[in-house]
Amino acid sequence: MQTISITPSENKKQKPADDSLVFGRQFTDHMFIMDYEEGRGWYDPRVVPYQPLEMDPAAMIFHYGQTVFEGLKAYRTKQDTIQLFRPAENIKRLNRSNARMCIPTLDESMALEAIQTLVDIDRDWVPHKEGTSLYIRPFVIATEPYLGVSASKTYTFMIILSPVGAYYEAGINPVKIAVENEYIRAVKGGTGEAKTAGNYAGSMIAQENVAKKGYAQVLWLDGHERKYIEEVGSMNVFFKIGDKVVTPHLSGSILPGVTRKSVIQLLKDWGITVEERPILLSEILDAHKNGQLEEAFGSGTAAVISPMGELFYNDQSYVINHHTTGALSKRVYDTLTGIQYGTVDDPHNWIVDVPKK
Amino acid sequence: MQTISITPSENKKQKPADDSLVFGRQFTDHMFIMDYEEGRGWYDPRVVPYQPLEMDPAAMIFHYGQTVFEGLKAYRTKQDTIQLFRPAENIKRLNRSNARMCIPTLDESMALEAIQTLVDIDRDWVPHKEGTSLYIRPFVIATEPYLGVSASKTYTFMIILSPVGAYYEAGINPVKIAVENEYIRAVKGGTGEAKTAGNYAGSMIAQENVAKKGYAQVLWLDGHERKYIEEVGSMNVFFKIGDKVVTPHLSGSILPGVTRKSVIQLLKDWGITVEERPILLSEILDAHKNGQLEEAFGSGTAAVISPMGELFYNDQSYVINHHTTGALSKRVYDTLTGIQYGTVDDPHNWIVDVPKK
Repeated sequence: MQTISITPSENKKQKPADDSLVFGRQFTDHMFIMDYEEGRGWYDPRVVPYQPLEMDPAAMIFHYGQTVFEGLKAYRTKQDTIQLFRPAENIKRLNRSNARMCIPTLDESMALEAIQTLVDIDRDWVPHKEGTSLYIRPFVIATEPYLGVSASKTYTFMIILSPVGAYYEAGINPVKIAVENEYIRAVKGGTGEAKTAGNYAGSMIAQENVAKKGYAQVLWLDGHERKYIEEVGSMNVFFKIGDKVVTPHLSGSILPGVTRKSVIQLLKDWGITVEERPILLSEILDAHKNGQLEEAFGSGTAAVISPMGELFYNDQSYVINHHTTGALSKRVYDTLTGIQYGTVDDPHNWIVDVPKK
Repeated sequence: MQTISITPSENKKQKPADDSLVFGRQFTDHMFIMDYEEGRGWYDPRVVPYQPLEMDPAAMIFHYGQTVFEGLKAYRTKQDTIQLFRPAENIKRLNRSNARMCIPTLDESMALEAIQTLVDIDRDWVPHKEGTSLYIRPFVIATEPYLGVSASKTYTFMIILSPVGAYYEAGINPVKIAVENEYIRAVKGGTGEAKTAGNYAGSMIAQENVAKKGYAQVLWLDGHERKYIEEVGSMNVFFKIGDKVVTPHLSGSILPGVTRKSVIQLLKDWGITVEERPILLSEILDAHKNGQLEEAFGSGTAAVISPMGELFYNDQSYVINHHTTGALSKRVYDTLTGIQYGTVDDPHNWIVDVPKK
């Protein structure tokens, strides 16, 4: 494995107070960077001071959008150790995204070492307050200055870090969701399974439209029949109907979430039936009508669990669980965050330490 | 209108010889740049020496892909004037793409003046040899350093220029096309109508797969039923069946090409029936079987007209017009390029001059 060279920053930034943290606006003192050239492979892994990139205006990322990213977090435990949650899952998905986007894959142990090395150097940036964490953003961009539509011959892999506040300042809290009727996030055969920029760029207009009407997120339907449920905002989605939990199966158009996978495992551990299958919106609305829709929530790295308090569709509001967080949603949230912060047992070895060097 | 400031380059590059030109690899001495900030609008339009951009690694273009672009050309006439082909159409489409991608729109006359000013300054870069031109690439990128998924509050609008050789070195030449069965370019409700990076990033894998089998481009089918024809590679597509010409209608998932629109106008001028409507792949294959499929071609800025000599689908090859360029394809090509280079009458006022300042 290549050795990561380290150039420490000589001008350390002032760290924000734990109470003033917002998501994704402040970055730490260092970043990881590594380059790729056709014929040479990935080379020169290095940690350097956080700094601007020099990009040719013709760099392919600006024109044809070849790029992938990941999102995960580092957590500070009560013992003041720093730990990651299932980082290998994010790295594997990064490589699956790379394959879909014609970007060369990364050595997975090198990518994990890069994350650990960078987080270790900036470990003082991992905030202390409950619910806070250090957000980790690995990403790859195509850098060749060429306007032909074909895969780039050069890339840069980077990791940047951003300290983030608690997602729920006043405890876990249900949000209002609107079903999206006009825009489509992805279809099978497209890029919906990959964590790539275009999926997010295309979804902003729907998000802006529903925000104006007071909804926090959209519920995406399938692009073929606009009948099946896909995702909620940029999260996977779960519904508790009677005694069982249902979630859309990995159809080829939804993102295979690491939190989703973990939620399913926890539910199975607890003996709860989980069905991964196509889910008609009408099935959920019928369950609501029959009083069977007990809980609904989104799952993702940012919020971990985001309960749905209300679903809006065709000029009608469907209130779920009296706008409160259901017992199962809360149990999943408490268990997952407990594992992440090291206060709850980790039976599946999801936690990976960030050793101090 | 804001005045465009000009900083001339002091280190002029060596211009490539007309014979050695390739597409999109060499750039001229200058570029246009203009910034946007929420609350302030677009500001500081300027022509500066072609140079790298300084980008924060957290700039939203790298993560959520908010970006749009255009492609058009400047042509040198025999009288040594420089002219553009329907630039207002590209600028209008740029603004439609902006609207879809939640990017603030541009003042259209400012954008045209920006193109004219930049091309004028680098007018010596417009090559002289027949079939050559100066490719113009306007594009907008989201620049705010923020990892939240929402529209950026800052953007940069740029124009770069690249001298390009003749698309057909040895005259217009038919290519082999494979019908794409696995991947999907776009669906209604997605971003297929916008000229945005994600559409191109998502299509590369299909292009790479067919290239390995000896095909030049893919023929995209619709994402719903995979039965209707959409586009060919990054071009629109036309079929001559008997006396009439058919082309997919603007369904919401295909790019509204400027060349497409111009081809339709020319055909109508010539009294030829053009149908813009849903086109089943099976209709085209049936027409081939019946000997009615006389010609097929793609249309786009790069090639103008690209005849299809062969269509590959389900392990079967369908040779079109004996692998030769049809008379109508040739007439469209000759007329359009004639108008572009000023050797053929321009009855619709498609040509816009680049005045010398």
